[in-house]
Amino acid sequence: MPTTLITNGTVVNADAAIRADVLVRDGRIVALGEPMDAGVADQVVDATGLLVLPGGVDAHTHLEYPVDGFSTHTADDFHTGTVSAACGGTTTVIDFVKKEPDRSLYDTYLRRRDVAAGKAVIDVGLHAIVPPRAAQPDVLDDLRRLVAEGATSWKFFMAYPGQMVADDELLDGFELARELDVLPMVHAENGHMVAREVRRLVERGRTAESFHLRAHGHDSEAEAVHRAVVLADTVGTPLYVVHVSSAAAADEISRARAAGSRVWGETCPQYLVVAYEDYADLGERAAAYVCSPPIRERANQAGLWRMLVTGALSTVATDHAGFCLHQPDDLPPQKMRSPGYFPKVPNGVPGVEDRLMVLWQAGVASGLIDPCRFVDLVATRPAKLFGLFPRKGTVAVGADADLVVWDPAADHVITAAGSHTRTDYNIYEGMRVTGRPVHVFSRGEHLVDGGGLRLDTPGRGTFLTRHLPYLG
Amino acid sequence: MPTTLITNGTVVNADAAIRADVLVRDGRIVALGEPMDAGVADQVVDATGLLVLPGGVDAHTHLEYPVDGFSTHTADDFHTGTVSAACGGTTTVIDFVKKEPDRSLYDTYLRRRDVAAGKAVIDVGLHAIVPPRAAQPDVLDDLRRLVAEGATSWKFFMAYPGQMVADDELLDGFELARELDVLPMVHAENGHMVAREVRRLVERGRTAESFHLRAHGHDSEAEAVHRAVVLADTVGTPLYVVHVSSAAAADEISRARAAGSRVWGETCPQYLVVAYEDYADLGERAAAYVCSPPIRERANQAGLWRMLVTGALSTVATDHAGFCLHQPDDLPPQKMRSPGYFPKVPNGVPGVEDRLMVLWQAGVASGLIDPCRFVDLVATRPAKLFGLFPRKGTVAVGADADLVVWDPAADHVITAAGSHTRTDYNIYEGMRVTGRPVHVFSRGEHLVDGGGLRLDTPGRGTFLTRHLPYLG
Amino acid sequence: MPTTLITNGTVVNADAAIRADVLVRDGRIVALGEPMDAGVADQVVDATGLLVLPGGVDAHTHLEYPVDGFSTHTADDFHTGTVSAACGGTTTVIDFVKKEPDRSLYDTYLRRRDVAAGKAVIDVGLHAIVPPRAAQPDVLDDLRRLVAEGATSWKFFMAYPGQMVADDELLDGFELARELDVLPMVHAENGHMVAREVRRLVERGRTAESFHLRAHGHDSEAEAVHRAVVLADTVGTPLYVVHVSSAAAADEISRARAAGSRVWGETCPQYLVVAYEDYADLGERAAAYVCSPPIRERANQAGLWRMLVTGALSTVATDHAGFCLHQPDDLPPQKMRSPGYFPKVPNGVPGVEDRLMVLWQAGVASGLIDPCRFVDLVATRPAKLFGLFPRKGTVAVGADADLVVWDPAADHVITAAGSHTRTDYNIYEGMRVTGRPVHVFSRGEHLVDGGGLRLDTPGRGTFLTRHLPYLG
Amino acid sequence: MPTTLITNGTVVNADAAIRADVLVRDGRIVALGEPMDAGVADQVVDATGLLVLPGGVDAHTHLEYPVDGFSTHTADDFHTGTVSAACGGTTTVIDFVKKEPDRSLYDTYLRRRDVAAGKAVIDVGLHAIVPPRAAQPDVLDDLRRLVAEGATSWKFFMAYPGQMVADDELLDGFELARELDVLPMVHAENGHMVAREVRRLVERGRTAESFHLRAHGHDSEAEAVHRAVVLADTVGTPLYVVHVSSAAAADEISRARAAGSRVWGETCPQYLVVAYEDYADLGERAAAYVCSPPIRERANQAGLWRMLVTGALSTVATDHAGFCLHQPDDLPPQKMRSPGYFPKVPNGVPGVEDRLMVLWQAGVASGLIDPCRFVDLVATRPAKLFGLFPRKGTVAVGADADLVVWDPAADHVITAAGSHTRTDYNIYEGMRVTGRPVHVFSRGEHLVDGGGLRLDTPGRGTFLTRHLPYLG
Repeated sequence: MPTTLITNGTVVNADAAIRADVLVRDGRIVALGEPMDAGVADQVVDATGLLVLPGGVDAHTHLEYPVDGFSTHTADDFHTGTVSAACGGTTTVIDFVKKEPDRSLYDTYLRRRDVAAGKAVIDVGLHAIVPPRAAQPDVLDDLRRLVAEGATSWKFFMAYPGQMVADDELLDGFELARELDVLPMVHAENGHMVAREVRRLVERGRTAESFHLRAHGHDSEAEAVHRAVVLADTVGTPLYVVHVSSAAAADEISRARAAGSRVWGETCPQYLVVAYEDYADLGERAAAYVCSPPIRERANQAGLWRMLVTGALSTVATDHAGFCLHQPDDLPPQKMRSPGYFPKVPNGVPGVEDRLMVLWQAGVASGLIDPCRFVDLVATRPAKLFGLFPRKGTVAVGADADLVVWDPAADHVITAAGSHTRTDYNIYEGMRVTGRPVHVFSRGEHLVDGGGLRLDTPGRGTFLTRHLPYLG
Repeated sequence: MPTTLITNGTVVNADAAIRADVLVRDGRIVALGEPMDAGVADQVVDATGLLVLPGGVDAHTHLEYPVDGFSTHTADDFHTGTVSAACGGTTTVIDFVKKEPDRSLYDTYLRRRDVAAGKAVIDVGLHAIVPPRAAQPDVLDDLRRLVAEGATSWKFFMAYPGQMVADDELLDGFELARELDVLPMVHAENGHMVAREVRRLVERGRTAESFHLRAHGHDSEAEAVHRAVVLADTVGTPLYVVHVSSAAAADEISRARAAGSRVWGETCPQYLVVAYEDYADLGERAAAYVCSPPIRERANQAGLWRMLVTGALSTVATDHAGFCLHQPDDLPPQKMRSPGYFPKVPNGVPGVEDRLMVLWQAGVASGLIDPCRFVDLVATRPAKLFGLFPRKGTVAVGADADLVVWDPAADHVITAAGSHTRTDYNIYEGMRVTGRPVHVFSRGEHLVDGGGLRLDTPGRGTFLTRHLPYLG
Repeated sequence: MPTTLITNGTVVNADAAIRADVLVRDGRIVALGEPMDAGVADQVVDATGLLVLPGGVDAHTHLEYPVDGFSTHTADDFHTGTVSAACGGTTTVIDFVKKEPDRSLYDTYLRRRDVAAGKAVIDVGLHAIVPPRAAQPDVLDDLRRLVAEGATSWKFFMAYPGQMVADDELLDGFELARELDVLPMVHAENGHMVAREVRRLVERGRTAESFHLRAHGHDSEAEAVHRAVVLADTVGTPLYVVHVSSAAAADEISRARAAGSRVWGETCPQYLVVAYEDYADLGERAAAYVCSPPIRERANQAGLWRMLVTGALSTVATDHAGFCLHQPDDLPPQKMRSPGYFPKVPNGVPGVEDRLMVLWQAGVASGLIDPCRFVDLVATRPAKLFGLFPRKGTVAVGADADLVVWDPAADHVITAAGSHTRTDYNIYEGMRVTGRPVHVFSRGEHLVDGGGLRLDTPGRGTFLTRHLPYLG
Repeated sequence: MPTTLITNGTVVNADAAIRADVLVRDGRIVALGEPMDAGVADQVVDATGLLVLPGGVDAHTHLEYPVDGFSTHTADDFHTGTVSAACGGTTTVIDFVKKEPDRSLYDTYLRRRDVAAGKAVIDVGLHAIVPPRAAQPDVLDDLRRLVAEGATSWKFFMAYPGQMVADDELLDGFELARELDVLPMVHAENGHMVAREVRRLVERGRTAESFHLRAHGHDSEAEAVHRAVVLADTVGTPLYVVHVSSAAAADEISRARAAGSRVWGETCPQYLVVAYEDYADLGERAAAYVCSPPIRERANQAGLWRMLVTGALSTVATDHAGFCLHQPDDLPPQKMRSPGYFPKVPNGVPGVEDRLMVLWQAGVASGLIDPCRFVDLVATRPAKLFGLFPRKGTVAVGADADLVVWDPAADHVITAAGSHTRTDYNIYEGMRVTGRPVHVFSRGEHLVDGGGLRLDTPGRGTFLTRHLPYLG
């Protein structure tokens, strides 16, 4: 592999932006320094006027992922999904393993690992989802074995029939996580409250797609966050709350952190820049926006941003789970399989390619956060929490050369047509952004050049056997 | 100046600890990289098993500083004080300018700048203290001019006769700070409440040194913090609260930050590891512990530590203001000038040399914080807030080579006898610490070598004309 | 005086509504009982279908009250003001004494007492306003003497040039109040913040009447409440906050009460049912709505009501301070003396006659509070807090026969024309209410009969030498 | 029944203490008035220097109550328990109905009603306990029918195997309660958390009686309160939290009330004046103190008292559930059936006779609350919340003549020997109290005279078909 020198750029890490040249050899960063002689490298990338960021780490994706009792699955597979990610400046994704009906969690994990490794263009890790005890009585044994396989983070569902676990299962799972220093994650919604609202809405005939919002109240999310924190604190384990959508839920995290709880919150671009008002009147096409927790009222956004600015929310991931609006021939039924009946709409929105651009535009270009905080949210913090740091998430000597050369002045319009996901729509359609990736390197290999895809060999990505979380 | 290579160490910055060699040339860091050939440098320091930290930045010292109406001054001058700082791993101090009775604030600043520059061994900056309007009606004009001289942070006293300013003066000062992007600082105690308690104590004959604590209630500190934040928020300026001593006051900061206020809190080692119980029974020698806000009850420490861990407290400085217990001939009256009468005891404790060792021991060695957070508290954050970053506060390409090679396994006992301050006692006397500086570099010059002072030329330090704060 | 039997009504007290006859003799209630024989009394009032309430106690009025440096005074004197009160079901008012420039507070109090006693139709008490120390250095001596004269509540201004006191004066006054068991009251706005906003508005030419709102921010009110509570707590005295207008300020009271502080908040009907939006577009006529704190945004009302419902707000008074829009010949300049320049508009709105009807309509008829809570807010609680209970504020054996027979089904439209105040407008003009007083008795005398004024002899009211507060 | 005149006393109601005579005829209060001629009554009780209170209402007792899967039951039956209550000044108890294994809830209720009515000396009501759906699928139908039988309050267990209901059952039950205006009650502990702690303690061999405390953490109680409030709020129903023992749980109620939630908290004398430290070292005899939630650390008491004073806690009941330490022949196994193994100790402490004396001593005599607040806590508020007001809970015309003549100066020492419960110990043994009942009337009948039991006919008490709650 040729050595590469990225010269004249500004290296942006979570704690500082520094003028420095970056020298890459054998897929790793071997030096940062004052302007170097071009002769030290085989290839020179001129980053004059540009930023050099660590590659994005998207800690929440769902590629070729089964939903609704395995009746359908998301549109992107590990190839199209990781190509899409790379084109947006993300060089690592961490996806999920949901136990298959006829396989143990452990076996499902190994199988999915191999599928991912065989297709991915960038590096991939997997979180384990802890099924209800009823689905696999010995699941704790599997979890224990999975740590050695790199599953150092486990997700628990506090909602959804068939996935939802009760408090005793949370306690048992958290206990094991604490013993093994694994980071537990929760999908925090009170499933009983959600189920009650769904039932009440259906009883009243309020089944149009946009009623999905009404089934997932702020209070059900905030209550679940509060309870998860209490349970984690009583066990003594840290906690990660995925896809925080409600400002009230983020407030619970903020309060808990201020009181000393070790809890981190993740939010997603769709909650920060898209709103209920954007799909309330779209009729059946509102299905495109159906995800859980839901994309909430515009009035909710200010509170989420404040929590992002103040630090109660620590990461921005996508929860990328794309489904098509127009049914392709080669996929199981997607968004439109039950028009007018929200409980049957597959939950999920795409976004793995858009994350950095959307957050840069809405956060950095707007002045709410600075480039260092941006890097922390999209790369450094997730890399730390999920056991990949400092190999990923920082531009530092010794790290993988997962690098994004970012043009903060680039003008770009986001469209589905211009994206690489298989999903056939984009919830940010038409959004004009200033700032986008120009070059993307994964372990020193030049995947994106001048904004264009240059290398997309399936399987060049590696499976990441993740270490224990770094929580400092 | 010879080039220096620090090799085989672990570079610790606020966001990451990385194995990297550090190459220093012309007083600046020119490269970080994988192990380099010793031939690149004139001098090689082997840091095997050691940490390489950015030099400490102590944002709160009082060297040769007048107190009590200029009737006395602190024991250390800019030479002894900065030598002491350097020996403890601190390579930058920011001191204060208090307007002299017969000089304008501007003139006092310039004069004090020259004094500092003529004596200091390390680099020095100065905060401006905003006197009451009555003391200098045109003080805002001076403040405006002082920004160009590097006074990009201004301190307001909410307590103390003669220094205390009323809310309208705070509002006017904050307004100007906002206009000029200067960071206002407050000594947050409600002076009226303190004065009332002093009077009540004196009326009751409760004037022994240890009653000093009783005069400075938690509520007076918390109220002042709350009010300062409201005033800063209404004006729209960020705010820095110096020497937070009460957990209740820190809670106010925590709540304000969680609600979106841009406020940072500083605390000091004396509040974290020393307690009222340590001096309550010392009689007149309790004078050694008298400072304001006071060193509080042991039960208060847990809350302060929690706020330090959670981030509501962002920096650790010393408020170093040393006075002698045994009156030296060549100094004005010090700690014992009014035995048995706390209102006349000069306020202040030493600590500029101990800060890093004490915080490492009590924070890092104890497991409460990690080395990265330690660096952030003692170097990176103060450098950012006070306009010195990235020149100071980080081990990065282009930064000043203010470096500390830290031995995390060194065993050391803190004593007054082993310290370099002119103060003749140490409030940490006998404290055993694990971890201390082995080498200290200031702009590439080797001040401390193997723990021993090697270079102490008065005036080799420079005066820092500070930039505007970096608040990201 | 004839004995009176009020028969067949429902007696409503703060804690219960009971079917009972009420027998009145010699101006006092001598029995409550099951239906009595009409022969026991000289006069029988049939209250079938009606409620028997204790007469209203309005703890905040300003009758013939000097404002703006004694350059003008309110339109109602103690006769017209108390007639107006009586017609609205209020049988006690507590007004204020503001030290006159050429008289001590003590002398001003005695003089005003005599003026009130000579004109009032109902019973009247007086709070003392504590002037700044600069205005009367020995004011604490006067306050001490005034307790025996019935001034068992003292008001401090935290805003307004010439009236505003600093924290040390609050502390001294609170200390004396605690010693004497007097209840201190505060006008809680941060005067420095208000003055700053006034200055900024004037500088920008924003002097139209409706800009008055902008000068009095929520934060300045909330800050002052917070500080007053801290100061009262540190002294150890209970505290009463007059005319709470901002939900944020009420929240401060709520939090303080939940934490154990003994603090009570008063609000006024104008803050509960009138809004900035009602006068924002009235041009110069917005002067009719100018009072301080200001009548705030409609969005603020919900929070105030919640605090009223939850109990953080404990009383509803009027702050009745009527000025005329059309300048009468016999009064000093009133609302229109400085059109287009809000800083010169006399502050105050009328309402002493409307209080019960407005609160019944907006609170009871709407279902937010019940009749018992209504009675507590308008009569029982103020009577307790201001040393008049159980003589006033309850329908109980031994109490003064200050009674209102209330028709909860009466239909009435509030108008200035139908009111008895000298103010020539009504901020509730056109408001349709269900519920009004039919009969009003003051110490057994029948002032209002069938809604019509029957007795208005000036001076029949007595001056109330109030006892110490009952805070239970 | 003879007419009775209670003369010369001070009538204490929740809102006022008034000098008034009380005339009783046909079991009801027919008049309150100024001193009456003794000739109006057949019997005169002189209450000179004494207080006349409404009879106590204990809303939480367990008489002849099955526990631990019906393997044992409490020691008092409805006769001994109500005699004990009457001797302590309580004239109404509300007990619970727990569905029997072989009977529907409805049938169990009717049967228990008849048992109670056949034995009680004072009036008795019954709350219904809502069993898990698994125990009776059609339980909501039964609940609906029970309202007409006077069960206008339903209790849900959030802990305890066999009784604990999940959130969906709470939601369904709350929904029905809201529809019918019934007041739901919760035993608020997170059963999963408690079960985990029990298991961990047992695993470690920590089964001594005093470890019971450790199984029931503050956090499990606070979490359950928080969740119950969220669920009640989402449904839109008010909520009553029984036996709040943890200050942290009371804080949750306080916060919820301040935010507008309609939630009331009950605490018990044992939590206010007894502490873990009292039984920690008693060995097996600590069983005497085992109840749930547990009697907590002494440091917890201050917070509970504060919440009682501030109003977050609204009632004081006993949770009287007496078991004997020395096994009587005629009772099933009691406190000592499993020495050294806390999980098998029947939960419960006695106290129905001591409640008023203990709260008067610790609350009123100590100056924390006044007699009016005392009456509200022990009589008025529970009567209101549980549909008995104004028949019970107030000294008012038309009310039942359930009256207590209270001597606030009586000196008394509480002992098991001097009590009327069948329980053979008293957790207040040896407590000296100032204040006790001298006369107790139930519907005009003189049960206790001069402190001595005078009338104890089984079945003279009536069953109370309670109305809907009054929540004002």
